[in-house]
Amino acid sequence: MKNPVEEISLLLQTDMDAVNTIILQRMDSHVPLVNQLAGYLIAAGGKRIRPLLTLASTAIHNGDMSRAHLLAACVEFIHTATLLHDDVVDESDERRGQATANEVFGNQASVLVGDFLFSRSFQMMVDDGNLDILRILSDASAIIAQGEVLQLSSANNIETSMDDYMAIIKAKTAALFAAACEVGPVIAGGHTGQAEAMAEYGLNLGIAFQIVDDVLDYSANQKKLGKTVGDDFREGKITAPVLYALEKADAEEQEFWTRVINANQKNDDDLDHAIALMRKHKALEQSMGLAQDYADKALESISIAPDGELKDLLKALIKFTINREY
Amino acid sequence: MKNPVEEISLLLQTDMDAVNTIILQRMDSHVPLVNQLAGYLIAAGGKRIRPLLTLASTAIHNGDMSRAHLLAACVEFIHTATLLHDDVVDESDERRGQATANEVFGNQASVLVGDFLFSRSFQMMVDDGNLDILRILSDASAIIAQGEVLQLSSANNIETSMDDYMAIIKAKTAALFAAACEVGPVIAGGHTGQAEAMAEYGLNLGIAFQIVDDVLDYSANQKKLGKTVGDDFREGKITAPVLYALEKADAEEQEFWTRVINANQKNDDDLDHAIALMRKHKALEQSMGLAQDYADKALESISIAPDGELKDLLKALIKFTINREY
Repeated sequence: MKNPVEEISLLLQTDMDAVNTIILQRMDSHVPLVNQLAGYLIAAGGKRIRPLLTLASTAIHNGDMSRAHLLAACVEFIHTATLLHDDVVDESDERRGQATANEVFGNQASVLVGDFLFSRSFQMMVDDGNLDILRILSDASAIIAQGEVLQLSSANNIETSMDDYMAIIKAKTAALFAAACEVGPVIAGGHTGQAEAMAEYGLNLGIAFQIVDDVLDYSANQKKLGKTVGDDFREGKITAPVLYALEKADAEEQEFWTRVINANQKNDDDLDHAIALMRKHKALEQSMGLAQDYADKALESISIAPDGELKDLLKALIKFTINREY
Repeated sequence: MKNPVEEISLLLQTDMDAVNTIILQRMDSHVPLVNQLAGYLIAAGGKRIRPLLTLASTAIHNGDMSRAHLLAACVEFIHTATLLHDDVVDESDERRGQATANEVFGNQASVLVGDFLFSRSFQMMVDDGNLDILRILSDASAIIAQGEVLQLSSANNIETSMDDYMAIIKAKTAALFAAACEVGPVIAGGHTGQAEAMAEYGLNLGIAFQIVDDVLDYSANQKKLGKTVGDDFREGKITAPVLYALEKADAEEQEFWTRVINANQKNDDDLDHAIALMRKHKALEQSMGLAQDYADKALESISIAPDGELKDLLKALIKFTINREY
């Protein structure tokens, strides 16, 4: 059985092919190292969920799909640039089961090629030539960058609150989901209410997506996830599972969390103990409950979109986001 | 006696004050670390030559100065973002006599705040709302990023040619000088020839500026330059002085250059010997001659601009670029 991402990809296959062609064309540079690194990223693949959202959101509102192709590629470039810089900042060596670009090409190349992809995405928006869309995507980019800085400040900081966490994931993940969706009705020349509803859908879907990601970092089948379980823990990131476990921690447990969150060095026993505490306090279940709240909001947001197969798939995508194991 | 940068700043003082106000306003973020790092950069100052070029180029063509203020600030943001990422890539610890942001706040914060400033610059361009200007500045950004990658590929590579070097400095430095100048006539609604002439002026000035910078890296009074002499040498960068010394190198000298350019470790004796070889082959004089060629081109490019005090100062700026000692 196909999952909704695969089903939408199949339904919009011609469009997705066009997006991939544009991605290849626009990544091309006269500088060999840019092409090598870009080629590596393309080969690494990924779910391409953000460009799919732009395509689906445009198609559902009967917008001009040739514009959607360009802007979907543009959204993927912003995402890829963010990933490149993220992996440098987190010192990650693996993503989706593959060595990260910074591991293969070095941090310097990752920083600079990220800058290139980001600039290139703005050139593509200028090619499209719609100032509303330029506004949506440049706003999202500034929000993402600030969210990343906020996340950096919150790492290894036991004082990080649930509000801080929500602000971080809204900015670093959900803002681009929202922008990717909002672009569709704007391309289609739909009314403001339609654009707002799609932005809300994307925002809530993105929040749910990130919370589930943060749960999977403690619970996933490592092979399916394609990344090392416990990465967030090792990086001292305060995510929903940690916050729920902290909420119910007794004095001794608080001491444990304070030590491991603030410490740069953690061992495997620490991770096992952290997971045991999360189980004890049902922190993963509570996190999934939080994700479900946003999934419900996403479902409500999309209710005003035109009915049809695509709308059903965008609804199924919400459920898939919650139930995925990777 | 004042230099032309100071004279233009004085002549356009009200405008420069407005630019500085916008820079402060637009750097502001709800994320404390962004503000701390941004505040540090503002305090560090700098010549602000690029925003001055936008102001002068707009004023000389009688353009709307309130738009020039916003776009001059935007140009400075692009430049600052580039510097932040540059210092991370070069592992620099000092700039203009001060510890670099990456030295004080860490590489991670520098990468992410650079991304923020870059995104913010695009938001400001969207606020201005002119697609021609968005095109000019997004093209410049993509060129800069590719130039930086090309420079990274050429470091420690003895095969780097004069053509490679020219391509690097045109992209990493001159493209933003060109864009900063081109914006003026576009704001003023001038004809294409005026915009092209100002872009040419900026490009040639920027090339001359960078060549002189590369000469100063081997010849400057360290205290005035505010950076360590020999940085480029230590980083294995192939610049004009090295290329001219290499051109006339005998077998033994070639062996020396090959060893030191490819080596990660260089000692002070190596730097002294490199400078001695440059003196022997008049490599610094030849580099200055090359810079002068571009200074001459810049002078020619600006000839069609409206006569007046500003034009005279923009001409004096060319001479100052060549004659500066820091």
